[in-house]
Amino acid sequence: MVDILHRVGVVSSPDDVYAALTTIDGLAGWWTEDTDGDSDVGGVIRFRFEPGGFDMKVMEAEPSGRVLWEVVDGPEEWIGTRIRFELKREDNFTIILFRHEGWQEPVEFMYHCSTKWATFLMSLKRLVETGTGEPAPRDVKISNWH
Amino acid sequence: MVDILHRVGVVSSPDDVYAALTTIDGLAGWWTEDTDGDSDVGGVIRFRFEPGGFDMKVMEAEPSGRVLWEVVDGPEEWIGTRIRFELKREDNFTIILFRHEGWQEPVEFMYHCSTKWATFLMSLKRLVETGTGEPAPRDVKISNWH
Repeated sequence: MVDILHRVGVVSSPDDVYAALTTIDGLAGWWTEDTDGDSDVGGVIRFRFEPGGFDMKVMEAEPSGRVLWEVVDGPEEWIGTRIRFELKREDNFTIILFRHEGWQEPVEFMYHCSTKWATFLMSLKRLVETGTGEPAPRDVKISNWH
Repeated sequence: MVDILHRVGVVSSPDDVYAALTTIDGLAGWWTEDTDGDSDVGGVIRFRFEPGGFDMKVMEAEPSGRVLWEVVDGPEEWIGTRIRFELKREDNFTIILFRHEGWQEPVEFMYHCSTKWATFLMSLKRLVETGTGEPAPRDVKISNWH
């Protein structure tokens, strides 16, 4: 099992970062505009992109502490993997430790998703710091796989 | 042992991407302006940043195919790890499959380096596509760790 790891710091409070991870409006502001569903614990959030999308079950949501999703529908390689955001305060930053864990194999799609997650976490940082993120379909394009 | 993986596509020839990975000028254009040393196989390239830097031994350099470095000096967690760039042509892109392999543990610094590598690979893409990258000290800042 292999994981994707990232660390980003947002000049903002943990509350604001937590809101961007746990509300439909927040998520639509940095990952994909086409987001809906139920973002409470036990709910399923539906994220859609031009080529497809992901359904995430919210497993944990601890205010300003951590958020954990499990992928319940989407590309085969993603199903059953988990996405974890841990928040902590350091200097005047809210640090996000991100982990997309439980990939069966380091397939080429995992290389792609690792870079895409980095650009989306930078979009989350920008959203919380400036009010404007870069969610799909206005996301940063990194290759022929978008 | 855990690895950092990324995939980026550059709208350019493999030759141009290869040059950005195997010449001092190319490397200084996307990773850090303070780069010198010997970029031939068996040579050591010295990369310096404000807080420190890395010395890489060039283990393999196969024109327009792959480049492999071993870290011979730098932060303790990096020493002995390897950095691999595999190039291939797909559609009108040169695809870079990047791997920073052989980390002993997924320490917090590894989370940081994973995100930083993504932003530097986007800087490499920009350099080759437009002539201007974002090397240190003009690099994209991602957190309190820079």
